[in-house]
Amino acid sequence: MNNASAPLQLTIVGLGRMGANIARRIKREVLANTPVNISVFDVSADAVKTLSAEGFTGLSSLADLKKQNDAANPQIVWVMVPAEVTGATIKSISEHLDKGATIIDGGNTFYREDIANADWLKEIGIDFVDVGTSGGVFGLERGYSLMIGGEKKVVDRLTPIFRALAPGVESAERTPGKTGAISTAEEGFLHCGPAGSGHFVKMVHNGIEYGAMAAYAEGLNLLDAVRNGITHPTAVGGKSETKYDLDLAQVTEVWRRGSVVASWLLDLTTQAYEEDPKLDNYAGSVADSGEGRWTVQTAIDAGTPANVLGASLFSRFASRGNDLYANKVLSAMRKKFGGHTEAKSK
Amino acid sequence: MNNASAPLQLTIVGLGRMGANIARRIKREVLANTPVNISVFDVSADAVKTLSAEGFTGLSSLADLKKQNDAANPQIVWVMVPAEVTGATIKSISEHLDKGATIIDGGNTFYREDIANADWLKEIGIDFVDVGTSGGVFGLERGYSLMIGGEKKVVDRLTPIFRALAPGVESAERTPGKTGAISTAEEGFLHCGPAGSGHFVKMVHNGIEYGAMAAYAEGLNLLDAVRNGITHPTAVGGKSETKYDLDLAQVTEVWRRGSVVASWLLDLTTQAYEEDPKLDNYAGSVADSGEGRWTVQTAIDAGTPANVLGASLFSRFASRGNDLYANKVLSAMRKKFGGHTEAKSK
Amino acid sequence: MNNASAPLQLTIVGLGRMGANIARRIKREVLANTPVNISVFDVSADAVKTLSAEGFTGLSSLADLKKQNDAANPQIVWVMVPAEVTGATIKSISEHLDKGATIIDGGNTFYREDIANADWLKEIGIDFVDVGTSGGVFGLERGYSLMIGGEKKVVDRLTPIFRALAPGVESAERTPGKTGAISTAEEGFLHCGPAGSGHFVKMVHNGIEYGAMAAYAEGLNLLDAVRNGITHPTAVGGKSETKYDLDLAQVTEVWRRGSVVASWLLDLTTQAYEEDPKLDNYAGSVADSGEGRWTVQTAIDAGTPANVLGASLFSRFASRGNDLYANKVLSAMRKKFGGHTEAKSK
Amino acid sequence: MNNASAPLQLTIVGLGRMGANIARRIKREVLANTPVNISVFDVSADAVKTLSAEGFTGLSSLADLKKQNDAANPQIVWVMVPAEVTGATIKSISEHLDKGATIIDGGNTFYREDIANADWLKEIGIDFVDVGTSGGVFGLERGYSLMIGGEKKVVDRLTPIFRALAPGVESAERTPGKTGAISTAEEGFLHCGPAGSGHFVKMVHNGIEYGAMAAYAEGLNLLDAVRNGITHPTAVGGKSETKYDLDLAQVTEVWRRGSVVASWLLDLTTQAYEEDPKLDNYAGSVADSGEGRWTVQTAIDAGTPANVLGASLFSRFASRGNDLYANKVLSAMRKKFGGHTEAKSK
Repeated sequence: MNNASAPLQLTIVGLGRMGANIARRIKREVLANTPVNISVFDVSADAVKTLSAEGFTGLSSLADLKKQNDAANPQIVWVMVPAEVTGATIKSISEHLDKGATIIDGGNTFYREDIANADWLKEIGIDFVDVGTSGGVFGLERGYSLMIGGEKKVVDRLTPIFRALAPGVESAERTPGKTGAISTAEEGFLHCGPAGSGHFVKMVHNGIEYGAMAAYAEGLNLLDAVRNGITHPTAVGGKSETKYDLDLAQVTEVWRRGSVVASWLLDLTTQAYEEDPKLDNYAGSVADSGEGRWTVQTAIDAGTPANVLGASLFSRFASRGNDLYANKVLSAMRKKFGGHTEAKSK
Repeated sequence: MNNASAPLQLTIVGLGRMGANIARRIKREVLANTPVNISVFDVSADAVKTLSAEGFTGLSSLADLKKQNDAANPQIVWVMVPAEVTGATIKSISEHLDKGATIIDGGNTFYREDIANADWLKEIGIDFVDVGTSGGVFGLERGYSLMIGGEKKVVDRLTPIFRALAPGVESAERTPGKTGAISTAEEGFLHCGPAGSGHFVKMVHNGIEYGAMAAYAEGLNLLDAVRNGITHPTAVGGKSETKYDLDLAQVTEVWRRGSVVASWLLDLTTQAYEEDPKLDNYAGSVADSGEGRWTVQTAIDAGTPANVLGASLFSRFASRGNDLYANKVLSAMRKKFGGHTEAKSK
Repeated sequence: MNNASAPLQLTIVGLGRMGANIARRIKREVLANTPVNISVFDVSADAVKTLSAEGFTGLSSLADLKKQNDAANPQIVWVMVPAEVTGATIKSISEHLDKGATIIDGGNTFYREDIANADWLKEIGIDFVDVGTSGGVFGLERGYSLMIGGEKKVVDRLTPIFRALAPGVESAERTPGKTGAISTAEEGFLHCGPAGSGHFVKMVHNGIEYGAMAAYAEGLNLLDAVRNGITHPTAVGGKSETKYDLDLAQVTEVWRRGSVVASWLLDLTTQAYEEDPKLDNYAGSVADSGEGRWTVQTAIDAGTPANVLGASLFSRFASRGNDLYANKVLSAMRKKFGGHTEAKSK
Repeated sequence: MNNASAPLQLTIVGLGRMGANIARRIKREVLANTPVNISVFDVSADAVKTLSAEGFTGLSSLADLKKQNDAANPQIVWVMVPAEVTGATIKSISEHLDKGATIIDGGNTFYREDIANADWLKEIGIDFVDVGTSGGVFGLERGYSLMIGGEKKVVDRLTPIFRALAPGVESAERTPGKTGAISTAEEGFLHCGPAGSGHFVKMVHNGIEYGAMAAYAEGLNLLDAVRNGITHPTAVGGKSETKYDLDLAQVTEVWRRGSVVASWLLDLTTQAYEEDPKLDNYAGSVADSGEGRWTVQTAIDAGTPANVLGASLFSRFASRGNDLYANKVLSAMRKKFGGHTEAKSK
């Protein structure tokens, strides 16, 4: 029988930027009446040491999890490791847990992998919860937006942890028209549905993020272009040039107030300009991670158009030169049918 | 010689949703030491009457502008009429103004039209200022984000008007790292450059708006699809289905707190769900206005890629059925080479 | 020991439009010195009967394959069934074959499924070859373009079959500059590489097909639009209309001769116009099959941009109304921030 | 009164690759009973000299056109100069022509400029015809596909010229189902409608060309990628790699026979591979000319989706690095919200 009044026994596995701050935020935010004991582990002993110095219980190996098994208060392990080792880590962890324990995958896992993980863990008596975690490096201070998948009774037990991590109801004005009790979504965490649904919603969230980022990037690219001058052909065979010496740091700043495109991404863009007005620190080679890819691939499975999300993903591929061969083919075709030579300038 | 201490003499021409609220907000927000006298005009006498009842000076015709000419305090006319009549309205207004007056085009005018307008108005001694005005129906309360083009000394004189309209410095947290005096961009208005530059920046702003909106729309479309089930072919010839009974009103609500995609557009989407959880009030036929089109056309003139902005525009065209003939061509081709009949289902 | 001089023993399983014509073309085209015995099977007894009447050996069940096993002349089974039953059909067939036999998958199978199939078939001593087959309903007369994956020695033995099916060297002018022996590619069949590579190349072929089709469709859509008139806003605030009463059947006809866009797809489009000048027989609901989807999903795995291929796929989804919810979201947003009502017209 | 039986008096102005070959092809192809006298002019005296040596009448200046005016047999001037000087050249030519003469603009002019040109030329009594000319460097041998705009009686008189330039009816098989008299479209030239319609159809033709080219380029890019290996994440957290050592020259060759994507562009691509198997001669910086841009801009005016045509245009812009600033913005955003550093590899 569960000891519902005992402090939850939570271990964070993976103490990178996200995992360490998640440990810290839970510790800081849990209420007196819902305490959580927090252990930590990482393959880097240094990372464990740092957190131990902050008052967390450091484990020296995953095998230490064994000691925390308690039939009356089943332990909870939050896995926050890189996507490519998540599966193996969950496997290892599961070997040290008693039945009744819960594994939370808080990383960026493909939702169909979650479904598979939930299935085999269930067979050995371990509950699985997937948590899409948005918030980035600002999460420690701002809190994290949490999208959660799993069985209701399992998720419910974890509520104090999610509540501690979430930004809280005061972090945004209440949506006009809403009345009655505050929902958990208004606190910043949502039980979306069964296994995989948390990561599904987070995946789409990231797809939207790609699209919105690309919208700003394309727009600012055009504003940058007008600084060098845009030549317009006119209908009657002439040309005119438009050139404006715009200050883009000021433009993004003014959009932060009252405009339709105000957003947190815009706030961050403005900060980036503040620190590096010409963006000289960036070479323009843009990485992408699994979720942008999975979103478009899943949209294709679903038969739903994803022109914007797809284009935002493809532009990242092109930013890394992955369109080079295609462009050689185009130049070769132009050479053959028109005798055209390649462009020398923009 | 200008009487710099006299109240600015401003007339708002065009009392639709935007124009009326602009008049109201200026009246409400101007400080005691920078008063503005506000007249109003509209082709609808009723609209003028409504504003007159609120204490504004109603003009009965544009010819009434003549009476307001004052060499010591040149008057200012803010034109806020539909794009298609803006040119003609400016022409009419100019006929009643003395040299030294200023015409502000606050509507959604193509920036190259502004350049032309500024040129011919200059020849008759009238100053021209273009103002891109973002804020929509919420502007009266939240203030408007203002992107301004024109000559510096002309724009400077209008500062009290812009300051009254802008949301003000407290409407967003100061960008971290910024120090020193508050810029006008931090108040919500920005002198971007010479004639046309205000509308240029506003045009691109709207292009970004289209792209960001489409990002949310495509993502929510995919979340909607998973409610009906997505069938995935598996690499080994089988199939699996994913189905989650997501509550999208809750999903957008949770994203408002701590997530990377938090934005004003998301706040509004959440409100829309609050009022109409299934979006039953909408048929999905999406209008577009000039600025989205001009942004992509200008990006083409500039030679800058606009895949996301273009796709967001094209999806609106398709939403109105303008892809029908293209789709018939595709079906005809498929019939011819493969004997395929048309799709009956999704 | 193989009896290399004996006629190849081939069975076609699946006698739909493609399978039946493949049987017919092989029968008609094989040379006297490389005869092929052809059996046929289909789950429809009527289909078998039709082919039997044409001189093929009809099998009454897959179990009849057993009788054809011959250690000295291992039999070959060409599977040409719908993608969703291909895996199961191969499984059933394998149960009746002796070691040394070859199964050809001529359908539209995902290349990673081929790799899996080749692996498990190899374990039971059966060779596997995947053949991407392009040519549609015209293949019987024009021949099929064949893209082949599998082990070289296995593929080599099948050459008489592929040669019979391919269009032959005379079907296109020799590529200028080519000298020396005619390659099989110049006959119309190509051993691309190991298992799956045939279907991989065919998959990409179909992706290109989608993109090229969409290029024509979008262009013809614009030509259709100018028949109703296009309104151009002019830079100085006016409007002009362009309207041309184009005859699109004539336009596609003229492009067939000497233009850069001449192609077989254009020939077919012209035929479609000949039969149905207004394309009234088509509703514009465009199906898609696995290969277009797999191409884009694989491009994403590969990190290569696929804007055109993706857009051509997404436009088919939209043609079936799968963008409806996205468009409702857009209308809802526009309503909220701007008080805009939905578009009534194009 | 016109002397209908006299040889047409034609002058080609502009003796670049296109203009010189047009002169040559007309000379070679005109029938005995419809002779054409051909004069030539170019700003380069050398170019005139070359053609004079081939038997054409060389003019030493545009003023020489004056001598060719003949009220009974009004002369025809075909302008084939770069787009940016077309307007000025037409202006100059018009000053030397008598009423009743015809100016043909055979270059790549924006159709709205044609409409303007036709208007002012009509006022001075000169007829104007716009001819979209497709065929590239192969036109001399293959003939040109001609899309013609202008008044019917003016165009009709020019028929011998168009017939000489067009590829002729034998250049493609008759479209199945067509019966009766051969149309001019079946010969390779088409009177599309009034002024501008020829260039409108040619503009869209080029837009389609961009889209179709990009379809091949994206597909071949993916085939190139699989040569280096594609890593697929699997649903259960693993990875698999696909690597095929494809010979793309052979792939394009096999597609030329019997496949759905057979086309002239594919023939040319195969030639390019024949000459340069790795496309090492190309850097991948792809030029674009006006017509691709105008097509997409006009589609936007028309409100018709052009995702594929737009994407194919934008990919050329990106090939020239015009997406650099956008990519810097993306990297800056990723740095700010996630602390991410830029991608180092593909």
